[in-house]
Amino acid sequence: MSSVRANVPNRASSTALHWPVTTLSPCRGPAPFRSHIRSAHASAAPATKDAPTAKQQKQKQVGGGGKAVEVAVTPRSEDFSKWYLDVVAKAELADYGPVRGTMVIRPYGYSIWETIQSYLDARFKELGVENAYFPQLIPYSFITKEAEHVEGFAPELALVTKGGGKDLDEPLVVRPTSETIINHMFAQWVQSHRDLPLLVNQWCNVHRWEMRTRPFVRTLEFLWQEGHTAHATAEEAEEEARRMIDVYTDFAVNMAGMPVVAGRKSRIESFAGANCTYTIEAMMGDRRALQAGTSHNLGTNFAKAFGTQYLDRESKRQYVHQTSWGVSTRIIGGIIMTHGDDKGLRLPPRVAPIQAVIIPIVKKEEDRVPVNEAAQRLADAAKAAGIRVKVDADERQTPGWKYNHWEMRGVPVRVEVGPRDVQSGTCVTARRDMPGKEGKQMGVSMEPAAFVAHVQGLLGEIQAGLTAQAAAFRDANIVDVRTYDELKEAIATGKWARGGWAASDEDEKRVKEETQATLRCFPFDQPEGPHTCLMTGQPASEVAIFAKSY
Amino acid sequence: MSSVRANVPNRASSTALHWPVTTLSPCRGPAPFRSHIRSAHASAAPATKDAPTAKQQKQKQVGGGGKAVEVAVTPRSEDFSKWYLDVVAKAELADYGPVRGTMVIRPYGYSIWETIQSYLDARFKELGVENAYFPQLIPYSFITKEAEHVEGFAPELALVTKGGGKDLDEPLVVRPTSETIINHMFAQWVQSHRDLPLLVNQWCNVHRWEMRTRPFVRTLEFLWQEGHTAHATAEEAEEEARRMIDVYTDFAVNMAGMPVVAGRKSRIESFAGANCTYTIEAMMGDRRALQAGTSHNLGTNFAKAFGTQYLDRESKRQYVHQTSWGVSTRIIGGIIMTHGDDKGLRLPPRVAPIQAVIIPIVKKEEDRVPVNEAAQRLADAAKAAGIRVKVDADERQTPGWKYNHWEMRGVPVRVEVGPRDVQSGTCVTARRDMPGKEGKQMGVSMEPAAFVAHVQGLLGEIQAGLTAQAAAFRDANIVDVRTYDELKEAIATGKWARGGWAASDEDEKRVKEETQATLRCFPFDQPEGPHTCLMTGQPASEVAIFAKSY
Repeated sequence: MSSVRANVPNRASSTALHWPVTTLSPCRGPAPFRSHIRSAHASAAPATKDAPTAKQQKQKQVGGGGKAVEVAVTPRSEDFSKWYLDVVAKAELADYGPVRGTMVIRPYGYSIWETIQSYLDARFKELGVENAYFPQLIPYSFITKEAEHVEGFAPELALVTKGGGKDLDEPLVVRPTSETIINHMFAQWVQSHRDLPLLVNQWCNVHRWEMRTRPFVRTLEFLWQEGHTAHATAEEAEEEARRMIDVYTDFAVNMAGMPVVAGRKSRIESFAGANCTYTIEAMMGDRRALQAGTSHNLGTNFAKAFGTQYLDRESKRQYVHQTSWGVSTRIIGGIIMTHGDDKGLRLPPRVAPIQAVIIPIVKKEEDRVPVNEAAQRLADAAKAAGIRVKVDADERQTPGWKYNHWEMRGVPVRVEVGPRDVQSGTCVTARRDMPGKEGKQMGVSMEPAAFVAHVQGLLGEIQAGLTAQAAAFRDANIVDVRTYDELKEAIATGKWARGGWAASDEDEKRVKEETQATLRCFPFDQPEGPHTCLMTGQPASEVAIFAKSY
Repeated sequence: MSSVRANVPNRASSTALHWPVTTLSPCRGPAPFRSHIRSAHASAAPATKDAPTAKQQKQKQVGGGGKAVEVAVTPRSEDFSKWYLDVVAKAELADYGPVRGTMVIRPYGYSIWETIQSYLDARFKELGVENAYFPQLIPYSFITKEAEHVEGFAPELALVTKGGGKDLDEPLVVRPTSETIINHMFAQWVQSHRDLPLLVNQWCNVHRWEMRTRPFVRTLEFLWQEGHTAHATAEEAEEEARRMIDVYTDFAVNMAGMPVVAGRKSRIESFAGANCTYTIEAMMGDRRALQAGTSHNLGTNFAKAFGTQYLDRESKRQYVHQTSWGVSTRIIGGIIMTHGDDKGLRLPPRVAPIQAVIIPIVKKEEDRVPVNEAAQRLADAAKAAGIRVKVDADERQTPGWKYNHWEMRGVPVRVEVGPRDVQSGTCVTARRDMPGKEGKQMGVSMEPAAFVAHVQGLLGEIQAGLTAQAAAFRDANIVDVRTYDELKEAIATGKWARGGWAASDEDEKRVKEETQATLRCFPFDQPEGPHTCLMTGQPASEVAIFAKSY
């Protein structure tokens, strides 16, 4: 049914470029992220306005503990792409790995992933899904068993051909996704209808040999969870696929503050091997769409390829009906590009590794101890209430430097404590989502319960505020279109186009060729009809959304 | 200094065998684990007494939900190795992957890993270690930079030579451990003494092309955590290496109930690239030693290979001093082989995925609802108190079948609830570590607080009891030896030999060749001296332990 892999909309030329392996032996300074396309060898790239040399960079960024003044990020309003790479590098979310297209997820970035993991993992377990781990190396022959699957994935596989000093008889695929190996196991584990449903998930790394990479958004290796389920009936599989896209929607909206549009992919854009793919599509700050999570109804496609059958109540052999669903580290890129502003990152409190940073303000040495102690008492109270809090008592940096530093890192709430505050028993709070005086509040009580209630209140408001802001931005940038010309105009102005769609796969491909926009989804949330197909003028049962995407 | 990789004591012949890739296309039944050495192609192996055919096995094991009677495991006392493979397969801890030497960690086995992860992860974070993620694919040239490292690891690497349909210019190593790539990044991140110490950890998979595999204990791919730290001084690195082996010791003893012997490896047995390796050595039920965790003081070896330097307070360039430390899924094999008995698994409560199973006993249909409700109330109370509890109300199995089933799976406490119990407000508990009547207690109050206190008490006693039993077994099987003849005798009878050691590397190799025993460690806990070297008769400053090992 589908011939394009869901995560790689533009794959026509994906094998056209040879990927050199970059081994940056003498590279010393942290280079900020830049497009792999622009500079083929990051370490060897000459100094340009865009890409400071390692040495320049090193002087600017002497790490969290250095005394050097932090250079601000490129304003988002000036150059979105450069802003993104700046934020990723300067907030120390990720760094380039030595092999082209790979990334190192640094502690600050990884801790966002940990908050995502802990939330989703708990949700999966509540729904009866159990974690397991399947081998990463898959016999090449497995990949070829499902016709569309191999067509979708073969061009971007990494292959192990040598092991233990010998050439292997058959190359092994470094897992790009695990439907095949999991079906190989399910076929052994499932015997009877009593073994169903079978609901497993794994947290792991996967590799896809991508041509155009961007940290978090598209990398040669990424981390994700992949859920795989087997059911007795088509109805149950469909329910499961829908249930999981709902879990993802709920996570995106309520945790990540990303007001995604959930819907169904077109045949062309569905996962290679799926009957149907559900997706959550998020609008980034530059109005491009980001596919932030998918859930596939695989039907019996893999079951037939691998012989995954069960005996039903009448002792007849039946194929199982399956689903798979995944969310990856890509969503961290989505969080950055949804909420960030000219100053850097803005993290929704529920996914922020640090929700509140407390900064002691000490001008005279004799104030240091009482001010630091007061700051620590506030931190202890906040921590006890479950707030992720940090005291930044580093004596080598000024308060102003710290304000910028933690603003750039997107910490939602800042608390300032000075000597006069200690005397008056109050402190000052500032919101990351409201610049200047508007977001500041003086005279906040330092009495533990009152302080905690105040900070919790702020965190709730910021979570809601960032979400509402993103939703308003999304709504202002979706245009209802009635004709292909209107679609083209909407896309040309950078917006999403929504209109009736009942045209052919060929028409859909034509839209992509002519506008670079793809059919992102048929939203679950459909406006009232009747609709007319924007391309053919015929009646259409649904509207679709087209947009340029990452 | 060292020429042998810590995890592979016997590596002389590790490249001698070619590993065929087994692609078990038509394989349907779950084959129990058996030695990869014995049957080269698991799926194609003929039916023997040891290895039932897939079909036979399928008839026996119709999954957790099947009606078939579960076949008991081979008694441990009869054939330890067969018992181990039986337990792993029948308790559904793991299964073979399609590629030789790989394993699937099934949900029950994986959830043991999750309890290990959550404990260790919290400990690491308390100690200031942050999680991160480094790319899995490492340029081959990195591995060759540290001379001993390449000597130790080169023979068992898996290599990616093709990506995206093209041959790569340089093969990429599938991470066997990450010292090299992490140093590549540390060299960029560390500038000043203010950036130190740098403490990171990653949870990930690693590959080592092993010849002799055994589920959990030695597999081609395994899961682990690897901590990597950089420090300003040799003293700090040494402290860190010791601190982490203490964390592992504490975990092994107090969580896993494994009374390990902690100590220092000999030069020969140290990690390839380390100045010094610390280890925890556990005695398995067959008295073979299992290296269950290691912590390495890497000195400046990798720092020099990768140029990882910092500016000290006098602005002089200095190499960082490093450590690395890891615990892997191997420790699950250790838990199984430490505590298991003829009936199967016995899990220490602190690492048991299910600490208490509640079995409603229903003979008449009219009793079902009240009995099940009573069972559920007990479960709710236990769960609220943090006990990992499960109600097995499956109507298709008899209570007797369930007793065997959960005993085999090592659940520490069983609770039986029948109609008469409901009337009297009491229930029956049974301990996994005490067979028969001795471990049973009638008339246990079903009043929630009293019930929970009773179960918590049992869990504490079982944890302590299993640990004490393992410690007594260990102590009864370590023999103090004064001469090489005494050592040989001790090893020949399957015991560990402990004696003064101040002999040469050549002598150590001779012991291995002649007895198959290796120097496991110089224990931290040294008996009072003076000691005499068992080999040379010269004074020795320390005693060492020799044993056969996994």
